[in-house]
Amino acid sequence: MMLDNPAAKYHPFVAVDLPDRQWPSRRIEQPPIWTSVDLRDGNQSLIDPMDQERKQRLFDLLVKIGFKEIEVGFPSASQTDFDFVRSLIDNGKIPDDVTIQVLTQARDHLIDRTFEAIKGAKSAIVHVYNATDPMFRRVVFNVSKPECIQIAVDATTRIRQRMSEAPETNWTFQYSPELFTTTEMDFAKEIVEAVMVAYGATAETPMIVNLPATVEVATPNNYADQVEWFCRHVNDREALIVSVHPHNDRGTGVAAAEMTLMAGADRVEGTLFGNGERTGNVDIVTLAMNLYTQGVHPGLDFSNITPIMREVEYCNQLPVHPRHPYVGDLVFTAFSGSHQDAIKKGMADRRANPDAIWDVPYLPIDPLDVGRSYEAVIRVNSQSGKGGISYLLEQEHGIELPRRLSIEFSQVVQEVADRTGKEITSQMIYQAFADEYLGQTVPYALVSHRLSSEPDSPKVTLEATIEERGERRTIQGEGNGPLAAYIKALGGAGHDVEIIDYHEHSRGQGADAEAIAYVEVRIDGKAVFGVGTDESITSASMKGVMSAINRHLSTQAPAANVTADSLAVAK
Amino acid sequence: MMLDNPAAKYHPFVAVDLPDRQWPSRRIEQPPIWTSVDLRDGNQSLIDPMDQERKQRLFDLLVKIGFKEIEVGFPSASQTDFDFVRSLIDNGKIPDDVTIQVLTQARDHLIDRTFEAIKGAKSAIVHVYNATDPMFRRVVFNVSKPECIQIAVDATTRIRQRMSEAPETNWTFQYSPELFTTTEMDFAKEIVEAVMVAYGATAETPMIVNLPATVEVATPNNYADQVEWFCRHVNDREALIVSVHPHNDRGTGVAAAEMTLMAGADRVEGTLFGNGERTGNVDIVTLAMNLYTQGVHPGLDFSNITPIMREVEYCNQLPVHPRHPYVGDLVFTAFSGSHQDAIKKGMADRRANPDAIWDVPYLPIDPLDVGRSYEAVIRVNSQSGKGGISYLLEQEHGIELPRRLSIEFSQVVQEVADRTGKEITSQMIYQAFADEYLGQTVPYALVSHRLSSEPDSPKVTLEATIEERGERRTIQGEGNGPLAAYIKALGGAGHDVEIIDYHEHSRGQGADAEAIAYVEVRIDGKAVFGVGTDESITSASMKGVMSAINRHLSTQAPAANVTADSLAVAK
Repeated sequence: MMLDNPAAKYHPFVAVDLPDRQWPSRRIEQPPIWTSVDLRDGNQSLIDPMDQERKQRLFDLLVKIGFKEIEVGFPSASQTDFDFVRSLIDNGKIPDDVTIQVLTQARDHLIDRTFEAIKGAKSAIVHVYNATDPMFRRVVFNVSKPECIQIAVDATTRIRQRMSEAPETNWTFQYSPELFTTTEMDFAKEIVEAVMVAYGATAETPMIVNLPATVEVATPNNYADQVEWFCRHVNDREALIVSVHPHNDRGTGVAAAEMTLMAGADRVEGTLFGNGERTGNVDIVTLAMNLYTQGVHPGLDFSNITPIMREVEYCNQLPVHPRHPYVGDLVFTAFSGSHQDAIKKGMADRRANPDAIWDVPYLPIDPLDVGRSYEAVIRVNSQSGKGGISYLLEQEHGIELPRRLSIEFSQVVQEVADRTGKEITSQMIYQAFADEYLGQTVPYALVSHRLSSEPDSPKVTLEATIEERGERRTIQGEGNGPLAAYIKALGGAGHDVEIIDYHEHSRGQGADAEAIAYVEVRIDGKAVFGVGTDESITSASMKGVMSAINRHLSTQAPAANVTADSLAVAK
Repeated sequence: MMLDNPAAKYHPFVAVDLPDRQWPSRRIEQPPIWTSVDLRDGNQSLIDPMDQERKQRLFDLLVKIGFKEIEVGFPSASQTDFDFVRSLIDNGKIPDDVTIQVLTQARDHLIDRTFEAIKGAKSAIVHVYNATDPMFRRVVFNVSKPECIQIAVDATTRIRQRMSEAPETNWTFQYSPELFTTTEMDFAKEIVEAVMVAYGATAETPMIVNLPATVEVATPNNYADQVEWFCRHVNDREALIVSVHPHNDRGTGVAAAEMTLMAGADRVEGTLFGNGERTGNVDIVTLAMNLYTQGVHPGLDFSNITPIMREVEYCNQLPVHPRHPYVGDLVFTAFSGSHQDAIKKGMADRRANPDAIWDVPYLPIDPLDVGRSYEAVIRVNSQSGKGGISYLLEQEHGIELPRRLSIEFSQVVQEVADRTGKEITSQMIYQAFADEYLGQTVPYALVSHRLSSEPDSPKVTLEATIEERGERRTIQGEGNGPLAAYIKALGGAGHDVEIIDYHEHSRGQGADAEAIAYVEVRIDGKAVFGVGTDESITSASMKGVMSAINRHLSTQAPAANVTADSLAVAK
């Protein structure tokens, strides 16, 4: 429970004495060096860390976006990471202009293991850290300041040695005083300078010093003061590439990155959409797009941002929030009439002055620049994507589409939107759903059925009356359950049908309740959805099978568009 | 698509000339006046705006948290808002120490309508705005600067008049120059000063001037510069309560609020968890907790933050992200071994020094202060809440728990965790699930059944063989589907059973596929879940009913904890 007087338990952050700070008058006029830590800091904070396939997909995505430095793992701490790094190198997956980075603790055998992992890389950053924060020195590691420095210096010396033994690789060295933002500033300076000497950093062969806000504990201006203080006080600033690594515990990671860049940092470590420990690492997408909307090209390509989001969601198995800057489902929508009106006028003005600077009300960026659309701005229902469609169907009609069906159905709605050119209402969505799935009774319709099962046997026997183009006949089948029996019975009708997936739930309650069944079947090798409703759960699911077969036999089924790939990235 | 040279389309923000800015050396040592705009800015940006019930619940929640100023709507623009404001007043729902706020455009008939809406309120803020941004003046409204000022002054005069006619209300006046951050600073000052004169603001009867970042277009330090500039240049600063209203288009809304408070603002308008137009309004929860962890009590109570989050999710029908500061499912978890080890040492040190300042690695706040737990920090699976449990069941066992069942089941898992004191593995979760739901065959078990239906009739007839404590007998029933018939058949066994909800889906594919049915039934007035699996979809659902009945008849069912309230806020 919250304390009446939190000052008894929490202390304010320590401010830096820097009354002549320069950063608040500066602005960011060129992009920093971007370093992705998605595969390390991001991955280690996932409920379900990525497997090799996901790691490779994310790595490929990062390359495609344009990252030139990618921290690919912590190979001495994790066999999965070790294997992944080796696989990148051994299979030639790293483009020539991309440098991989690996993290290691400052311990000899871990450093050696790290070098095993990256042996043969064309270009690599070896990133070593130790904790310099006073609480860590005292409680976690029980070391004095000189001992803390010795750990860093010893590790640096060993790394330098290992590097010299493998001249085929283009090496860069990186050191992080961990929890920089809660370390005494003069001690941070002292330990970094000792490391610089041990490594032999010069302006010609600089090293990276990364100044992490491992935990965000202060307003972001304080991090900027610390970075400016550090840059102004450290010996031989030119021998350093100064990197920042903001986290987001106070919700100000993006601001912290921007202000530390204004304060002199050259490089930012972060992740796509801000995945990372606890509240996440700083979001590089937002940082990059913030630059872009200020007229500075970030050097990263988010021109088709939605598939990037889907791919990251697939790899991380975490959602991107609908209000996430530049990418969330809701960020290019305007619901209020006055906003819509202003946007309309702004768009018209822009059409009249196409070469003018972008200045459209409520839209800090042209949605087209990230692959979103103008329509998305104003018309709500037709444009809110499958999330919105599913939401409306669920809220207003009690229909909970399975994920894959929602993808298939969004194409149906899009078609209606394109064909009618009208704003799609909730009622139109329901009608499209009913027409596409529930109205499918030609050529086949179910009339009635009887099911029976015998004690201690999984087999059920089905006798069903169906109509084929209006003509009734009786079919029979047996199987492990009514659907299997039904399909067996239908099998005689000349189709090879197999159930892939099946969901069913109740709609409404009490006497009005009915069941709705979503059945995905493979028919003659194609995956097709069908939907059935009935008061009886068995009839509903059989009707679902019938709906799928009927859709397959008609020419409309867009099932061919649902590939394994689109399934994998579905929310 | 992103442009090669965005500078041709976008221009950098206009900086304020304020080289002697004071705010970067200040810190926030007391909370601002908090104003919730959840029911106005938040509500108007929802896919599905709140109905009266949701609005009332959110209002009550805001009061309970401790908000003393709540913007309750835009009554002249929306009949729903009008009705809600009237209902608050007419039903005496507003505590004496809470002031409601209503927004109005600067037009006579809308102002009059607004006063109709709030007639009889004990205490109210009338908030009028007009657009002062040059783009809006030119394109949207086609007004000159003097015309723009005249609109604001006329509205102010009319509002002052209306206020004087209703002396029973304790009135406060608020004016917003809309898009303050993109308005020329000297014009913003000029229009506010004109409004101050028209209203007659004095140090004794101050007015609120709200300086919105309607769209976030610059790094947050610039907003702070603008606010400091305004506070230092405006005539008669003491006659003003300076309010800020940050949005989050660049992901820096929280930083903007903090820096503008350092720059002299007295008041913040924002929302719970940052709901609001596009990327959202500033998140007051994060702002408040940021103060708290600096030893400053925010005056708002988030001591039990999870139910607050659930209630807001229910009202907004939007999720709070798992990495949201202070509240997300993942923010008190540590997955990496080194983090876990450091936290363990920090916790031990704290136990040894319970009166020391909070300083535990990787935990900027004691989770207990917001109603979360220590265990949540280290042990992963048992602690990641129902999201984690559901996720593991789905990923590893193909079990997709319906939302309400996932809440019920999380209590079962928690019990196992508490009883065993061990880290809960995925296998233990599955075992707990199987024991609790699938293993329920006493006193009743289903042996076999026969179902039949007749052409053109919804009725099905069921004959089932069941075992009651090992003894077989046959029951019969009829209904609109097999479940209804089954329950009818069981009804004779002395229980009043009704289906509340039913979900079923397939697990696995092909020959190995089976169905799993989740059935929520009301038995003797209590809601209980049951789960059944079988190769046959009908048998699975009947077994689900049986499982629910058996659980009810045993003493273990924790169903009593699932109240209507906890259901309503379920994700």
